[in-house]
Amino acid sequence: MNSFGQAFRVTSFGESHASYIGGVLDGFPAGLFIDEEKIQAELDKRKSGKKLTSQRKEADKIQIISGVFQGYSTGSSLAFLIKNEDAKSKDYEDIKDIFRPNHADFTYFQKYKIRDYRGGGRASARESAVRVAAGAFAKLILDDLGIKVQSGIFKVGKIESEDRDFDFAEESEIFSLSREKEEAFKEEILKAKQEQDSVGAGVLTQISNIPPALGEELYYKFDAKIAEYLMGINGVKAVEVGDGILASSQRGSQFNDEINKNGFLSNHSGGILGGITTGEKIIIKTHFKPTPSIFKEQRTINTKGEEVKFSLKGRHDPCIALRGTVVVNAMLHCLILDMLLLNLSSRWENVRKFYS
Amino acid sequence: MNSFGQAFRVTSFGESHASYIGGVLDGFPAGLFIDEEKIQAELDKRKSGKKLTSQRKEADKIQIISGVFQGYSTGSSLAFLIKNEDAKSKDYEDIKDIFRPNHADFTYFQKYKIRDYRGGGRASARESAVRVAAGAFAKLILDDLGIKVQSGIFKVGKIESEDRDFDFAEESEIFSLSREKEEAFKEEILKAKQEQDSVGAGVLTQISNIPPALGEELYYKFDAKIAEYLMGINGVKAVEVGDGILASSQRGSQFNDEINKNGFLSNHSGGILGGITTGEKIIIKTHFKPTPSIFKEQRTINTKGEEVKFSLKGRHDPCIALRGTVVVNAMLHCLILDMLLLNLSSRWENVRKFYS
Amino acid sequence: MNSFGQAFRVTSFGESHASYIGGVLDGFPAGLFIDEEKIQAELDKRKSGKKLTSQRKEADKIQIISGVFQGYSTGSSLAFLIKNEDAKSKDYEDIKDIFRPNHADFTYFQKYKIRDYRGGGRASARESAVRVAAGAFAKLILDDLGIKVQSGIFKVGKIESEDRDFDFAEESEIFSLSREKEEAFKEEILKAKQEQDSVGAGVLTQISNIPPALGEELYYKFDAKIAEYLMGINGVKAVEVGDGILASSQRGSQFNDEINKNGFLSNHSGGILGGITTGEKIIIKTHFKPTPSIFKEQRTINTKGEEVKFSLKGRHDPCIALRGTVVVNAMLHCLILDMLLLNLSSRWENVRKFYS
Amino acid sequence: MNSFGQAFRVTSFGESHASYIGGVLDGFPAGLFIDEEKIQAELDKRKSGKKLTSQRKEADKIQIISGVFQGYSTGSSLAFLIKNEDAKSKDYEDIKDIFRPNHADFTYFQKYKIRDYRGGGRASARESAVRVAAGAFAKLILDDLGIKVQSGIFKVGKIESEDRDFDFAEESEIFSLSREKEEAFKEEILKAKQEQDSVGAGVLTQISNIPPALGEELYYKFDAKIAEYLMGINGVKAVEVGDGILASSQRGSQFNDEINKNGFLSNHSGGILGGITTGEKIIIKTHFKPTPSIFKEQRTINTKGEEVKFSLKGRHDPCIALRGTVVVNAMLHCLILDMLLLNLSSRWENVRKFYS
Repeated sequence: MNSFGQAFRVTSFGESHASYIGGVLDGFPAGLFIDEEKIQAELDKRKSGKKLTSQRKEADKIQIISGVFQGYSTGSSLAFLIKNEDAKSKDYEDIKDIFRPNHADFTYFQKYKIRDYRGGGRASARESAVRVAAGAFAKLILDDLGIKVQSGIFKVGKIESEDRDFDFAEESEIFSLSREKEEAFKEEILKAKQEQDSVGAGVLTQISNIPPALGEELYYKFDAKIAEYLMGINGVKAVEVGDGILASSQRGSQFNDEINKNGFLSNHSGGILGGITTGEKIIIKTHFKPTPSIFKEQRTINTKGEEVKFSLKGRHDPCIALRGTVVVNAMLHCLILDMLLLNLSSRWENVRKFYS
Repeated sequence: MNSFGQAFRVTSFGESHASYIGGVLDGFPAGLFIDEEKIQAELDKRKSGKKLTSQRKEADKIQIISGVFQGYSTGSSLAFLIKNEDAKSKDYEDIKDIFRPNHADFTYFQKYKIRDYRGGGRASARESAVRVAAGAFAKLILDDLGIKVQSGIFKVGKIESEDRDFDFAEESEIFSLSREKEEAFKEEILKAKQEQDSVGAGVLTQISNIPPALGEELYYKFDAKIAEYLMGINGVKAVEVGDGILASSQRGSQFNDEINKNGFLSNHSGGILGGITTGEKIIIKTHFKPTPSIFKEQRTINTKGEEVKFSLKGRHDPCIALRGTVVVNAMLHCLILDMLLLNLSSRWENVRKFYS
Repeated sequence: MNSFGQAFRVTSFGESHASYIGGVLDGFPAGLFIDEEKIQAELDKRKSGKKLTSQRKEADKIQIISGVFQGYSTGSSLAFLIKNEDAKSKDYEDIKDIFRPNHADFTYFQKYKIRDYRGGGRASARESAVRVAAGAFAKLILDDLGIKVQSGIFKVGKIESEDRDFDFAEESEIFSLSREKEEAFKEEILKAKQEQDSVGAGVLTQISNIPPALGEELYYKFDAKIAEYLMGINGVKAVEVGDGILASSQRGSQFNDEINKNGFLSNHSGGILGGITTGEKIIIKTHFKPTPSIFKEQRTINTKGEEVKFSLKGRHDPCIALRGTVVVNAMLHCLILDMLLLNLSSRWENVRKFYS
Repeated sequence: MNSFGQAFRVTSFGESHASYIGGVLDGFPAGLFIDEEKIQAELDKRKSGKKLTSQRKEADKIQIISGVFQGYSTGSSLAFLIKNEDAKSKDYEDIKDIFRPNHADFTYFQKYKIRDYRGGGRASARESAVRVAAGAFAKLILDDLGIKVQSGIFKVGKIESEDRDFDFAEESEIFSLSREKEEAFKEEILKAKQEQDSVGAGVLTQISNIPPALGEELYYKFDAKIAEYLMGINGVKAVEVGDGILASSQRGSQFNDEINKNGFLSNHSGGILGGITTGEKIIIKTHFKPTPSIFKEQRTINTKGEEVKFSLKGRHDPCIALRGTVVVNAMLHCLILDMLLLNLSSRWENVRKFYS
């Protein structure tokens, strides 16, 4: 259960305090030039926003150990390692018997009766580096095909913006979609941090130049898999596609996207109908909860069931949605590649052409 | 791609206008008494609300064709058929070359270059009867274990209620969670219908008495699979777990669920942490778009790319969320059984006990 | 666990004495003309050899219930039913508490503590009609590509032939690969039958005109999947690829297939290297045990653990390998289609061409 | 496609000349003491037989990087690395454009149009160290349950023995099942080596104390999966279960295993009926081809299609079946654990007990 995807399949391994984390990519096509600098660049994005994210210092240098030969993908299982350099087990000694509120501590212990308390073990946000690396490989292909996945912050706490400036988001330290509100977003995060608290935020994603016909029938729909891939990111509590929750407030005559010769006249559906892409932009909103790790004193229990009050120490992002933005993109890169490959066999005409 | 689930796996088949639709259930444990009346009762719920749902008349009588012997499940693949009795192909003659807005017509044609225009073929909401039947089998097990999945309508269009009266929802013709607002909800739907339009609605679900420890690590998380299973239902545009989209507006100190000896002091997380159930109630919101099939004139194109105006005929629900409520429950029944079975092997102690 | 295949996936359902058996095919490409007569012809082959196979009379008329529209595959899940017309439950009353030697009776009861004793329930050879139908759909594609799977009987009991006359096998009532030995094979079967016994036999298969490059890396090798698909047929006890068991007696200098400009100079490998097809003929031997159902008196126990002697009644083939020949072909048709579809994404160059 | 297993799933990665090879194990139950010495002991078996196997010197020291905490399995994804220390890329310079006969060189190049020529890349027998390590983890569980998998050499080239001395095989340098024939087996291998050739051999396996009821219905049968797992090992050309190929020569009255109060009176079936274990010993024969790498001059072609004669250099086992014996055991350890876990959910009674 540590794999996702069908035709492009990612298997992730490693823990917060292991010597390595890493991943295995199956189904990555042979013959693509693997630009390691581009992959490293994606991993670096995950580290950005220094003041506002955790101070754990990781080079996050990727080490490819199979599937690439003389710079090109070989079609073989592509595997990579990322070293954990700054794992400090000591930091966690004082919470080893405590269930931190809103962490996986409680449920992992319920399920397995044993837990690696060092940094959350496998449940750590550290694991998202593997997702980002996997997505970076997939992105090499999407880049070549001109498919673009862009995400940014459209709300932090109660502050929200209607701006959708994806170019600005790429240069913004906090991936803000709004040039105007960037400062307000930052302040909201810093205020939460100063108050030993954390804050939730929302990520908006736009996928452009996506081919039509992606997504498989009934139980591998594009939107269903988007929902799964994004809800599975640590801290996500809601996923919306197209108009999302607004859809439940509307009339059909408002929501339906009419069509003329030049294409769709609106895009309330968010680029997906019947689980299959229309070719229009795909629009997604992902809602992240506030970081569960806060420094304020909280009530909880320990593994013996005793009530304790505790104040967290260590290094923690006040707003997980920032790094989350990069992870959202990565998961979508992986998903799109999967869908691209699955769709190759949808029509007999193409299969026949391939083999003759 | 017409299957879902891992340990409890549902494969669905059939189309709107085929002679049968049906399903195959793998992994259903042997030795359970299969109460066919209870299964039929679930299928009947899907038909309720006559005035407000489509007038297609289907007995939806289930016919079990394998996996049950002398009233008990045999452990073998459990298969069933449901006859399509009221399929009128003629109704669809006039839309056979037309892409109905917000239907799968356009995308299926893009993908396959051929489509069964009769009632949407396999993309038809008719297929949800298979999901409901599959869920009804799973429910037999959940009932025995005391696990309860309850859903109801909490909003219709712009009318919303904070009431959460699940008992009332079960008797309400429109599955309303509010006794007080039921009439207003109905009126909203009827008004949409009279205006040859349709309306969106929201479904709230509560799962109670769910055991802790369900859900698998990282890529088979309970909440990620909820999102996939529900976003995959026709017409769903957003899925929220726990506080859902509210989470992105909050501070950690608000959102975190503190714990004392007696359990959790709040349930913002909605019963899931790190993808695994805590034992608290699971809370989910599912947002349905308005039925795409409306009778108002709409602009679209035909398969030749020509612009056409057309007014739909036939039988269509003005609010798909009503039947959707039953389908949400069914999908969750299937998911919970899957998770119950997967969890059996999580601890060595239990495996050893089983084999000695 | 009632499905097989990855890109082309077959799900089978139904039991010996159910009203129907049937199958669901996922991944079948859209736009192929579905010649129902050809499919029926494959099902008819399974019934041939009247004198020598079971006298159960089944029309085995296939009824397609989804995935085909106006004669062409739609890309949607393709489902079909086959009616069980000649199921006589009474025949099995006297064995309902008895474990027939070498049948699944004993193990199914051990596993599930309940069994459908009527004709073996789901374990019945009747289910192979579903495999044959599924294979017949796959064969439509293989025929178009010129890929040919041919099987025949090369040994019956202790009588063996080196002849490999596949054309003759197609017209032979018992699929004999030897014109000369056909009569001896028949006699061997009839003799077994007259002596209230049964006899084992071996099936040799040749796959010609198979494209190179089929088969996936390490854990989805072509030969490994051949072994799984064929060993999973009722009654198979050994599978050999290429020189098979002979390989363990040989020297490398004998076994290695040297290559020159025109291709391979020999084919000891049987057309597969490293799990991937070379383009040479694939050669397979499948060994069937004698039919477990014999009329001679045998010792066994009943469900209470009491020793009993019993003589079987009913209708049984004296040599399951005859029908087995058709099932071997069908399973290989399904496997080859799966491999053809999986291979579409192996190289980036082809993926790029598809999307540009 | 670099994973195998369902409830216990192994994903393998790495290549002959990568810095590491490794594996990821999903579904390994939590709370088992992980005795690293025992795991290392299995890896060491793979290296034994120094004179007769390749001289590549690898410590094969396993490094666990997740899933184990304070000596116990945590239920999390269990990952490990094994360093490649003695990979000499230079050895392969002279074959980089040549397709070695009976190697995957030709087919990998056909499929991917690129190949890592250093030691066969991912197709190298080196990868089997991952399988052996994975099997060693599974074996910890089987040992605890008393399930025993034992394999040994019963034939080398044309020399065969009927002896089944599994205890002797464990101490024999070449895993010989015959004390008497061990010397003859060795001589046969050495003679092949001296003659710059290689030789095939056969491995016989016995699984004892296996619980009944393992194996899943129709398409996840125990014997079908045995065939897949073993045929997928490099160099295997045939797999037999129970009496194997003998079955096709026999009469039903000979082959059928009668039953009395004390159990089965014979075991021609090899411990499996209808794909499910009976509880009797499972008997398997695996036939390995001679090592394709021989030092004799051979004819082949290069990547330009030109004919060349070449004599291999480097380090190669004259008889791959020796190491193969250890790999056979490992694959079966993995398979049995998978089947043990899958079977947990077969009966409702057990599921109910678990959750109440």
